[in-house]
Amino acid sequence: MSLISPQVHALIDAALAEDRPSADYTSLATIPADRHAEGVIVARQALRLCGVAIAAAVFERSGGAIDYAPEAADGVDLEAGATIARVSGPARELLSLERPALNFLGRLCGVATRARDWTGELRRAWEALPVGGRPPLPPRLVDTRKTIPGWRELDKYAVRTGGAGNHRHDLAGGVLIKDNHLIAAGGVEAALLAAREIAPHGLRLEIEVTSLEQLEEALAAGAEACLLDNMKGEVLADAVARCREADVISEVSGGVGFAELAALAALGPDVISSGALTHSAPCADIALDFTRSWKTA
Amino acid sequence: MSLISPQVHALIDAALAEDRPSADYTSLATIPADRHAEGVIVARQALRLCGVAIAAAVFERSGGAIDYAPEAADGVDLEAGATIARVSGPARELLSLERPALNFLGRLCGVATRARDWTGELRRAWEALPVGGRPPLPPRLVDTRKTIPGWRELDKYAVRTGGAGNHRHDLAGGVLIKDNHLIAAGGVEAALLAAREIAPHGLRLEIEVTSLEQLEEALAAGAEACLLDNMKGEVLADAVARCREADVISEVSGGVGFAELAALAALGPDVISSGALTHSAPCADIALDFTRSWKTA
Amino acid sequence: MSLISPQVHALIDAALAEDRPSADYTSLATIPADRHAEGVIVARQALRLCGVAIAAAVFERSGGAIDYAPEAADGVDLEAGATIARVSGPARELLSLERPALNFLGRLCGVATRARDWTGELRRAWEALPVGGRPPLPPRLVDTRKTIPGWRELDKYAVRTGGAGNHRHDLAGGVLIKDNHLIAAGGVEAALLAAREIAPHGLRLEIEVTSLEQLEEALAAGAEACLLDNMKGEVLADAVARCREADVISEVSGGVGFAELAALAALGPDVISSGALTHSAPCADIALDFTRSWKTA
Amino acid sequence: MSLISPQVHALIDAALAEDRPSADYTSLATIPADRHAEGVIVARQALRLCGVAIAAAVFERSGGAIDYAPEAADGVDLEAGATIARVSGPARELLSLERPALNFLGRLCGVATRARDWTGELRRAWEALPVGGRPPLPPRLVDTRKTIPGWRELDKYAVRTGGAGNHRHDLAGGVLIKDNHLIAAGGVEAALLAAREIAPHGLRLEIEVTSLEQLEEALAAGAEACLLDNMKGEVLADAVARCREADVISEVSGGVGFAELAALAALGPDVISSGALTHSAPCADIALDFTRSWKTA
Amino acid sequence: MSLISPQVHALIDAALAEDRPSADYTSLATIPADRHAEGVIVARQALRLCGVAIAAAVFERSGGAIDYAPEAADGVDLEAGATIARVSGPARELLSLERPALNFLGRLCGVATRARDWTGELRRAWEALPVGGRPPLPPRLVDTRKTIPGWRELDKYAVRTGGAGNHRHDLAGGVLIKDNHLIAAGGVEAALLAAREIAPHGLRLEIEVTSLEQLEEALAAGAEACLLDNMKGEVLADAVARCREADVISEVSGGVGFAELAALAALGPDVISSGALTHSAPCADIALDFTRSWKTA
Amino acid sequence: MSLISPQVHALIDAALAEDRPSADYTSLATIPADRHAEGVIVARQALRLCGVAIAAAVFERSGGAIDYAPEAADGVDLEAGATIARVSGPARELLSLERPALNFLGRLCGVATRARDWTGELRRAWEALPVGGRPPLPPRLVDTRKTIPGWRELDKYAVRTGGAGNHRHDLAGGVLIKDNHLIAAGGVEAALLAAREIAPHGLRLEIEVTSLEQLEEALAAGAEACLLDNMKGEVLADAVARCREADVISEVSGGVGFAELAALAALGPDVISSGALTHSAPCADIALDFTRSWKTA
Repeated sequence: MSLISPQVHALIDAALAEDRPSADYTSLATIPADRHAEGVIVARQALRLCGVAIAAAVFERSGGAIDYAPEAADGVDLEAGATIARVSGPARELLSLERPALNFLGRLCGVATRARDWTGELRRAWEALPVGGRPPLPPRLVDTRKTIPGWRELDKYAVRTGGAGNHRHDLAGGVLIKDNHLIAAGGVEAALLAAREIAPHGLRLEIEVTSLEQLEEALAAGAEACLLDNMKGEVLADAVARCREADVISEVSGGVGFAELAALAALGPDVISSGALTHSAPCADIALDFTRSWKTA
Repeated sequence: MSLISPQVHALIDAALAEDRPSADYTSLATIPADRHAEGVIVARQALRLCGVAIAAAVFERSGGAIDYAPEAADGVDLEAGATIARVSGPARELLSLERPALNFLGRLCGVATRARDWTGELRRAWEALPVGGRPPLPPRLVDTRKTIPGWRELDKYAVRTGGAGNHRHDLAGGVLIKDNHLIAAGGVEAALLAAREIAPHGLRLEIEVTSLEQLEEALAAGAEACLLDNMKGEVLADAVARCREADVISEVSGGVGFAELAALAALGPDVISSGALTHSAPCADIALDFTRSWKTA
Repeated sequence: MSLISPQVHALIDAALAEDRPSADYTSLATIPADRHAEGVIVARQALRLCGVAIAAAVFERSGGAIDYAPEAADGVDLEAGATIARVSGPARELLSLERPALNFLGRLCGVATRARDWTGELRRAWEALPVGGRPPLPPRLVDTRKTIPGWRELDKYAVRTGGAGNHRHDLAGGVLIKDNHLIAAGGVEAALLAAREIAPHGLRLEIEVTSLEQLEEALAAGAEACLLDNMKGEVLADAVARCREADVISEVSGGVGFAELAALAALGPDVISSGALTHSAPCADIALDFTRSWKTA
Repeated sequence: MSLISPQVHALIDAALAEDRPSADYTSLATIPADRHAEGVIVARQALRLCGVAIAAAVFERSGGAIDYAPEAADGVDLEAGATIARVSGPARELLSLERPALNFLGRLCGVATRARDWTGELRRAWEALPVGGRPPLPPRLVDTRKTIPGWRELDKYAVRTGGAGNHRHDLAGGVLIKDNHLIAAGGVEAALLAAREIAPHGLRLEIEVTSLEQLEEALAAGAEACLLDNMKGEVLADAVARCREADVISEVSGGVGFAELAALAALGPDVISSGALTHSAPCADIALDFTRSWKTA
Repeated sequence: MSLISPQVHALIDAALAEDRPSADYTSLATIPADRHAEGVIVARQALRLCGVAIAAAVFERSGGAIDYAPEAADGVDLEAGATIARVSGPARELLSLERPALNFLGRLCGVATRARDWTGELRRAWEALPVGGRPPLPPRLVDTRKTIPGWRELDKYAVRTGGAGNHRHDLAGGVLIKDNHLIAAGGVEAALLAAREIAPHGLRLEIEVTSLEQLEEALAAGAEACLLDNMKGEVLADAVARCREADVISEVSGGVGFAELAALAALGPDVISSGALTHSAPCADIALDFTRSWKTA
Repeated sequence: MSLISPQVHALIDAALAEDRPSADYTSLATIPADRHAEGVIVARQALRLCGVAIAAAVFERSGGAIDYAPEAADGVDLEAGATIARVSGPARELLSLERPALNFLGRLCGVATRARDWTGELRRAWEALPVGGRPPLPPRLVDTRKTIPGWRELDKYAVRTGGAGNHRHDLAGGVLIKDNHLIAAGGVEAALLAAREIAPHGLRLEIEVTSLEQLEEALAAGAEACLLDNMKGEVLADAVARCREADVISEVSGGVGFAELAALAALGPDVISSGALTHSAPCADIALDFTRSWKTA
């Protein structure tokens, strides 16, 4: 991720502005301007690393005074205690920028780690199925648009870093006709026809259905993917099978947590989407520890 | 919260920019421009409400086309199924703005609900203590600077809405001398003296200590508050008692989760701080359901 | 278009900042502060109207002092001399904001008018074909990502207002494998397989091909849409036919201008894309004329 | 143009934000992260080069990963097929940034090329006049404030690069009393007197006139430059002559296109202004072609 | 000044962001949310009022909760104790926004008051001259580009409000050849010729001269205005007279303070410029006093 | 100050945007693009240096074309004529960026110099007191929130550079209960109790009092610091003594100028605050002089 977008730079700026590192009275008072220090950024828990370049960009806000050397790359799995990066530079600036850098890393690794864990669970459950009776691939786990406001790009990047996939990035990047659209549009067929006429030709037409009847209606009207919303048990199994039969992408969604994954893997939809991948991923525990400090000439 | 800061307005702008509501092909295609709708924003779980004015500000981005009428105020506790607000306006605009509005509400209510639950747990545990043997008040639960980057102001507002308190807002709003400062500053006494000289006179001097010896050193050097970092068991109990004796504020911090609260209440420190209040609060489940839709003249 | 995005508001701000209306010495000097005026915004040429809400947003920068009343809506065709809107308010503010408002309208109507004219030409040519021998619909004319930097959203909106369609909105909103990708990816099949694995499931896989051989390779590897780049004559005709046969979307692109449209309509590809719709559309001629001016009490 | 203003940096940011290079699914999928490439930016038509530093700034958004080496400087005339610059770096980043860079170059070269061509036409026409009977210099061709919103600075830079001149940069950079001002101000003399009193002393007083009578009124009231608006034929010739006699700058404006230039050169006004230089200049055709691609260690 | 520019809105946003009104712990703690108040904004010294609309814009950041009613308009002279405006609304919001509003008013009135006082001094001195022996008008007092960074537009507005004039607004709004230009350009004549060729025709050519010899050189080369830099005594008198004779604008500049004005008025240059009008104007003393407070239903 | 915050970068951007260096017609016209120059930034008066890194950041906006080498560091006292920094680079860019750089330096040095002078006066007066009869330290001189809007961070930095101290940085960084709060809160005791409950535990409770009676009330209710507002003579002396007796911080405020400092030093309050340190500090006189200019190859 050498390409940090203007939006992410703006988010870093916001993070610094809200923390006021330039009026860090504790560091200004207790640490002389000519004091340097070295330290390590350490994973305090096992995690999937994500955000090495973002932390670099935070420390670069020192105007080049801080040297930041990552010891691992995004996408790598680290054990508790592993070193993520080494930093050195003026002690004041290091401490003034520490918290924003760790806050970015903590959340990014948190999301990536959850994506890794949930994807792993799906694969494990799929591998436990009899080889003849399982689909060719485990279902693809994807995120949603339920990301933290301001964090869409980073949340989706962390999901990919964790090994899961992205659903549409934004409203321009996919067609997904939901229940509220149907109420306003006057039905499944009208909605699909209109979407075909207006949407860019590179977008598939996906529609949310909540019953087998609605699924049939959608298939008849040319849906190219069906989001099976909050369906359960046999109804869900029938719906997934029906989509497979019709050669239409099936997506299971609605209240999917870790506990539901194994059963869904056995069911074999093409896609499973979960907002909890991003909106409720707990932060990973990461710290910066000084190892040495000295006075510069 | 009638006063929405420029930073929060900027965050709303970022949330809209990243979701591209103006190129929402699904809504543009399936819903005629003259279609109106009414709907309700509903709590799908019990929660402490937070963010009513932020959601209003999101819908105001329609240029006044959407009418948004809250049914409850920030700080109120709602049951699952309760209505948060009613909305009406052009169906396209409603759907294009729905997700950012819900994403803000979901996170804000999530943080406020955790703050409420944890504060309640502390009070319950304190009330269960023998009246004579308990401190005059339960410990004050406060947040930290471990907030989602870009969300400092909103996270801290949600914590207050949940009934917990704020630790320092930013680096200019408090003095807190930590382990890394001590490494670079050359010791407890030097750090406290320097802080007294430089920091604004309205800031108390707080210092992080990890042992009883360090605590004594801090008290001798004039510390006005002591953060007891990752202390456990009897050592922690002694440290809290020592602070009380010295008439210095005691703050317990380090890996505090819900499970630890009851025991800490019995211990009776002045303050308990927890980053998990903000950095790992799960999102609350909130939805927008259309109730009616019609064609305007 | 009641929903004006933060990006468009930012562009309006940039347009005002670069024109310095608050230091408009001509108006400050020649017009007393208490002078009001009425005027009309007039189409000086036949055009497809686009941008009524953007001009409104420019005049709203007066802080509500200016009354702006559109006489026609976006998407309407106007004759030369027709009134677009009436404005009234302080004469100084009207003149200070006139140029940015007209600059927006001029470009938006320019793009919409070209989109209308080119779409009309395609339809006329298609209608002239023998009913039995023509495709069920004329080809869909779409734009590209060759928009004026900063104007992506507005340019694409103007194209839709002119009756043409949008190609992908941005890099996240579509998969389009081009020649340079193939050089770096190591061939058509590898590229398509990788795209299938990574891209959101709502995106079709489109690939640019420059020969019939490459087209066959793409079809064999599962392409869902083929951009026929700079193909001409019989090769192009064969390619279009081959796509139709394979039930894959065909897109003709590369140097398409007005003169090429009629022949392409006869050829019958699904989609024709042209950067000139946006990057070279001439500005429409629109003016603001004062009709009356008076001193307020 | 080593000095890129904050506004232009903001425009580049907007161009990147709207194209979402960090979620370029095509490149992310088809090109491994360790793939490098080299390529050339090529003029596909004869043009006046403009924007070399802007394209550099776009590629610098890769955080230094891309090497960009211009082969020619702004202001140089290139033949079709000429190389503008060489680029090399990670293939993903190159492709993700290609379009914004080309969109800037295309428009800037388009404007500069039109400015060059029109200026050349004026000079050719002037040189064809009998040496004794022509003015000492060809008329100066200048732009107007009819620039693309957000592009004032770049459009005016491209005009200068093409060899034409700038009219006032913005409302603070010149006094130009137009018809609408006169309606509100109460006449030519009042307007000129007021302008003399208020405007900075470094600004000349220019006034738009539409008849010989109004021109006389303006000259009598002390106008220092006269914009002869939409005058034609003998009236225009008389007006230009009258200005020359009065030693006042004459500017011809109103619907000036390439076809009008030769005749105007013969007429000999001091200045000719044309909005079409900027608002309707067609984009130049420029492409990026990969020449080589390889895997890095 | 109903037209508040995007830049000034951004400055207001910055002023609020830096003061953190949304985390105003004093007001949040001490004042209940349902407490309203009324108050007056009062001039604590005699002053020229400036900034009434800016203060309004600050209070509007309350989202309409605060009612702000000015009692006087920009450009009016107030005595100490006079009321500038009345405010009413939620007491919390009033107090949270008070300081930014007063900081804007204080500086704007400070600059306007100095401009008024200095302009008045010039006029008094001029009126004291014998009617026959004085120039037709007092010299025009103008500002410079020595404004507070970020405040150019507001500082220049305050100068005009105080009755003085503006020098060029920015580098695009005037030509002023200074000593450093001459060193790099190779002399007065070359510089003036080049400026004539490149600068917009609406800009006069002004040049800074430091001796009578240089003044002659400038006049010979076609200067249209001469800045007489740091000249004193007879040399200055001769220079002013020489400009008058040559019908060229004379501007006196360099270390001009209040004490110098009377003598300069007698000398009679066309223009006197002083950076101290803006860069060193003391702030005016303005306060907000609550008059009443009550609990709302 | 190697850490320049996003807000200060934004202020530099605003300063450049408002001065339009990229359309500096004087420099564009008179100086060839290949002309280089060297120059010195010189103190034209004795001053306390402040802003060396800010000026560097301004010149860095040239994209690295300008070399800027400071000769002294922030916090150093310079005599008139001393060199602050040397610059070299393209003459055009140097001149286009000169004014913003000097405007920053002028104000920052102006504030720092005043802070130095006033602090020095306090110390001189304190040292003149009989050793036995004076407090252990001179009063601490601090600033207020009366800073130039947009300049809070820089103004407070300049105050520190001048040797004075900061009062609270913003509304989140301190509790200060003022007269208007008391009107709305219902009295001293209620306000202090509420503040204790809500404010972060790291903030001391300070309250403004205007009489000895109110001071007693505040002390009785647990105030930790008292701002003695506009008290004079014996009343003030009694109030300071009473605070000392009660071991509560005393702050003298209200109309404090240089003339008042000596008497206040004798009185011996802990803190003296003055808005005039920032809001009315005159600008320091600093210039850029070219020393050499040459043509590059």
